Parts: sequence; C-alpha cells; structure tokens
Amino acid sequence: MTDVSSISEFELIRRLDFVLAEEMTSVSRQQNIVLGIGDDAAIIRPGAESQVITTDTMVDGVHFLMDSISMRDLGWKSLAINYSDIASMGCTPSHSVITLGLTPTQRVEDLEDMYRGFSDLMKENGGEIVGGDIVRSGTFFISLTVVGESDSQNILRRDSAVPGDLIGVTGQLGCSAAGLEMLSSQESENNSSKSHFISAHTRPIPRIDQGMTLREVGVSTAMDISDGLLADLGKLCKASDVGADIEIDLIPADGFLKKAYPERWKELSITGGEDYELLFTAGTEKIKQLTDGNNLDFSVIGTITSSQKCVRVLDGAGKEVIYQSGGWDHFRDPT
Amino acid sequence: MTDVSSISEFELIRRLDFVLAEEMTSVSRQQNIVLGIGDDAAIIRPGAESQVITTDTMVDGVHFLMDSISMRDLGWKSLAINYSDIASMGCTPSHSVITLGLTPTQRVEDLEDMYRGFSDLMKENGGEIVGGDIVRSGTFFISLTVVGESDSQNILRRDSAVPGDLIGVTGQLGCSAAGLEMLSSQESENNSSKSHFISAHTRPIPRIDQGMTLREVGVSTAMDISDGLLADLGKLCKASDVGADIEIDLIPADGFLKKAYPERWKELSITGGEDYELLFTAGTEKIKQLTDGNNLDFSVIGTITSSQKCVRVLDGAGKEVIYQSGGWDHFRDPT
Repeated sequence: MTDVSSISEFELIRRLDFVLAEEMTSVSRQQNIVLGIGDDAAIIRPGAESQVITTDTMVDGVHFLMDSISMRDLGWKSLAINYSDIASMGCTPSHSVITLGLTPTQRVEDLEDMYRGFSDLMKENGGEIVGGDIVRSGTFFISLTVVGESDSQNILRRDSAVPGDLIGVTGQLGCSAAGLEMLSSQESENNSSKSHFISAHTRPIPRIDQGMTLREVGVSTAMDISDGLLADLGKLCKASDVGADIEIDLIPADGFLKKAYPERWKELSITGGEDYELLFTAGTEKIKQLTDGNNLDFSVIGTITSSQKCVRVLDGAGKEVIYQSGGWDHFRDPT
Repeated sequence: MTDVSSISEFELIRRLDFVLAEEMTSVSRQQNIVLGIGDDAAIIRPGAESQVITTDTMVDGVHFLMDSISMRDLGWKSLAINYSDIASMGCTPSHSVITLGLTPTQRVEDLEDMYRGFSDLMKENGGEIVGGDIVRSGTFFISLTVVGESDSQNILRRDSAVPGDLIGVTGQLGCSAAGLEMLSSQESENNSSKSHFISAHTRPIPRIDQGMTLREVGVSTAMDISDGLLADLGKLCKASDVGADIEIDLIPADGFLKKAYPERWKELSITGGEDYELLFTAGTEKIKQLTDGNNLDFSVIGTITSSQKCVRVLDGAGKEVIYQSGGWDHFRDPT
C-alpha cells in the first residue's frame, strides 16, 4: 500500500488517469470533448440546445464514513448523486470535473478503487471525466461538478408546479434509509434484504432514462429525492409557491422494506433520504400518457394544492398524519 | 457576528445570494443563462463555438492562512485563479459554481465579505455564479468550477509549442512571491512597495484580454504561471515534448521588486509562484505582430528547443544558471 504523501502529485494524477483509461477502454468517447485532462482547462464543442451544470460534495464524517463504505462504492455514489441532479432536469450527463481533498496518509490504492467506482457509473450512464484538482486537506472530501445536456429547450425544474397537478414519484422509496440504519448499527447478520438495502444506499441509480421520458412527454416539473420525500416535496412547493396533499397509502415501498420494517416502512419511505428517485408533477392528461406508455415505473401519490407551502400527509380516512421531515441541515448535529 | 451553525443552511444560502444580488445589481446578466441558483442544476443555452471548463480549490492552511488574508481578498483570489485558467485558454469566463466547505464556527459576515470579493472580480471580468453547494467540513475550503467560452475554435493549449518558437510572458513576475514573503514574515512596517507586493499576491488579475489578444493573433500555445515561471515552463515543455532556453536578463520584473530585492529579484521572478501572468510561445512573425500591435504588454524571454524536457536558464554570457524550481507539491511539506 502506498500513502499519497510518498509519491508526487504528478505521479498520483498519472495513476488515477491510468485507471480511467483502462476501465473506459471499451466505452466510446463523448463526441463533444476536444481535450480532456492535462491542460489549464478542458475544451468542449457544445452542440446541444441546452446545458445544465450541478455540483455536489461529499465530506468524510459528514456525508459518509470511510469505515462503512468501500472506496469503489464511494466513487459510484459521489458521482451518482450529481448524475441524479442531471437526471432530474431531464438531461444526460456529458462531462465532469473532480476535486479530491486528500489527507497525506490516504492510500493511493484506495483512490484507484474510487476511480473504478466512477468508471462503473460512467460505463452504465455515460459521461466523461475531463479534469479536476487534487489538494491536501485536513479532511478527506470529493467535490464533483457535472455538466449535462439536452437537445430540447424543455428542461425540468422545480418551480413550475401548479394547483391541480398530480404528484408522481418513480420507483420505490425508503430502502436507502434502511441501508443507512444497517450500516450504522454494525449488526453482523447478513441476508438478502440487508444487502438490498445497503446497495440502495451505497449504489443509488441516477434516473436518467426516467427524466428523459418525463421531458419527452412534456412534463415540466421535477426534482430528485435526496433529503427525503417530505422535505423535498416541501422544497418543490416552496419554489412553485403551492402546497401539496399526499396519501400515505400511495407512497411506493418495496416488499423487502415492508417485510423488514412492518411498523416503520411508511415512515422510512416518506422521510428517509437518498433514494434519488424522481419527484414530479403533471396534469392528468400527461399522467395518463405516462401510464399508457408503460415505460415508466412510477406512482401517483397526491395532488398539488393552492395552500401555499403547506404539505400534508393524509391517511386512508383523509386525516392528517404528522411526520418529522427527514430534511437535514449540515451545520446542525444530526442527533 | 453570527456563527454559520446558528442559522439554517437555507438562511445562509439566502444571505450569500443576497450579497451577490446587491453587488451585481448594476451589472448586465449573462445572456446565455436561463436559470441560476435554486434548482437541482443551473440551465445554460450554450451559443459559443467552444467552451472550456476548469476547477481549482483553496484549502485553509494549505493555500492560504485565514490570519493573513482578508475574506474579501480570498473571494477575489479563489475565483481569480480559476479565471486565470480560462484566460490562458484565450476564452472569457461565462458561469461558475462554488462549493464551500465550512467549519461550524465560521462567521456568516466573513462569508458575506468573501462573496463581495467574488463580486469585485466578476464586475471587472464578467461571468456569473449560477450554483453551488455548502457542506460542513473539518477544514475550511473553497472549490470553484468555471466555464469559459470563445467564438473561435482556436483555443490556446500547452501542448503545441514547437522548436524555434519564441517564448513570451505577459506583465512582470516575482511580486506575488515577494508579497507572500511579506505576509509570512509579519513584519509590521508599511510602505508602498509592501502593499504593492501584497496586492499582487492577494488580488491577482486574470489576464483575460491578453489571452484573447494572443488567440486573435493566431498564437496557439499558452498557459498561466501559477507555480512559477521555471516550473510552469517545464510543464509546457513536457506537454509539447520540447525543451527551452531562457535568458535570465530578459525575465521581466518591475522597479519595486528590483529595488526591494536587489540580490534576489531574479530568483523571485523566475521561481516565485502565483503571478498568474500568461506564458506563451509563437513563431517570430506572430511575435512581431504582437509587438507592432502595441496592445499587449509582454517580453520575449527565450526560445523553444528540440532538447526534450530540458529547460535551461542562461546568463548574459550564455552560461547555464541553476535555480531550484518553485513548483511545489501539495502532499509534501513546503519546508
């Protein structure tokens, strides 16, 4: 094993680039990239109608614990959460730049594994790493900026929901939160549902095809669920200056979650974070199109209301149920 | 004074956005930006022929010391070093995303000052902040990604120097290194040369017009000087697979430096980092055009040779002088 402080910065960059080159050999390059890693800046020939740009950072001890996630999964996840933002705009990932803040005792082999994780994600979802920066830091962090693109001018955004819209969500919720609990509890028992939950937490899948399907049908309002359905729906309502009523019995959760958490699956699916499914709103006609199209796995969970900024969760009898929003604040201890 | 941990993340973002809005009121917006801060990603309508993307990060205790730079200067400088990369490609800055890694005890007012520093730079050099991320971190850091653009397909790069090219450098070198020495020595005496040096170090000016002039004349090889002339010329030669001979008596240094450092000004100007002037190479015809044009302040300092990767510094008699390269490595202690 090699500490990063025992080789030069140049050598470290060379080794990480080599992993990318090796892993991505069989993948066709992005047509729009003229020059990647190695100069003061990468050069792009932008041909698309629209571009989106997003940035997301993961810090050791805050967003992850080195002890409870493999470096390869950390690579996947740190890029995937950025790809999820691109997906939520209805775009496809084009190119990324990566900054690593490294402590002197980190191992080069671990970082190579992380780059294999980046490659795993890019092989399945496209995009290319075109540059970055490596700096010494007292705290290990990974900061990524991703540019996405679309041939359309219809980009999904969170500020365009209107009263009467139905509220949809792709996939199933709650498994990532269950995975986080299992990683934190350090319970040693292994079974298929445990690995299902942990995989949901460590290898989230950016819903790129789903975002494109939404855009193609003419949906205009979407965001990804990172802080939990309730917290993120609150943000969408705030941005759109509307309210929402959702029905607890319509929240999608899979059989693993219902079986492992018979008492808590509703809470986990409504407040748990990091599922990275897409939350969207649309009129009934568009929802019908999506249903008839059959190529989007989604659930209708409620309705946008004119009750500004008020998000209500209703039970089967139409009675409001109070949940603590799962949204969290980086500057307050998550106690 | 307000600690960042005493207000919500939402409130912090609101306060920082407010500074930008207030400072940039009189500045006309970038035409190509459809949606800035507030959604999962910013939306851009890319109209230019070429784009470049770069990222650079500054970490407390590594790239700066909170005690020796004002937060407003830190804002200027952290964005300026990215703008310098854009300038060195012959492009103009278009839009940026900013990630702040903050310790819980940092003061909101300091961060507001830093945003005033970002605004100072953008008012003079264009560009707009369209998004970012704020995370908690054990170490304070600022990570920026900047996209630049050009209506030309001729983008300056460091890998296109050929033997016989003359080597040029804009402006004067060494003052930033002198400024860093003065900040480190904590000498209390103030005079005009001291403030000149410190300003060169804390408020470097990205050479955007100069980069555009180079590109317009048809120069194709350039980079910015961040690690020192000698170290960066070495990188340019490595990328282009060439060598270089430069003449110590031709290195440009200003009167302040020569007066304050009669013994050391040559060393400072040839090895000192962070001047952010542009280093370029071009054939004699193009150099003549640049001289005749009279709108670029630059000096010819030597010649590109075919002696691969060998950079020689020569005195007036043509004899080689050995200097320790000023390039530094983030993972080794700068002792």
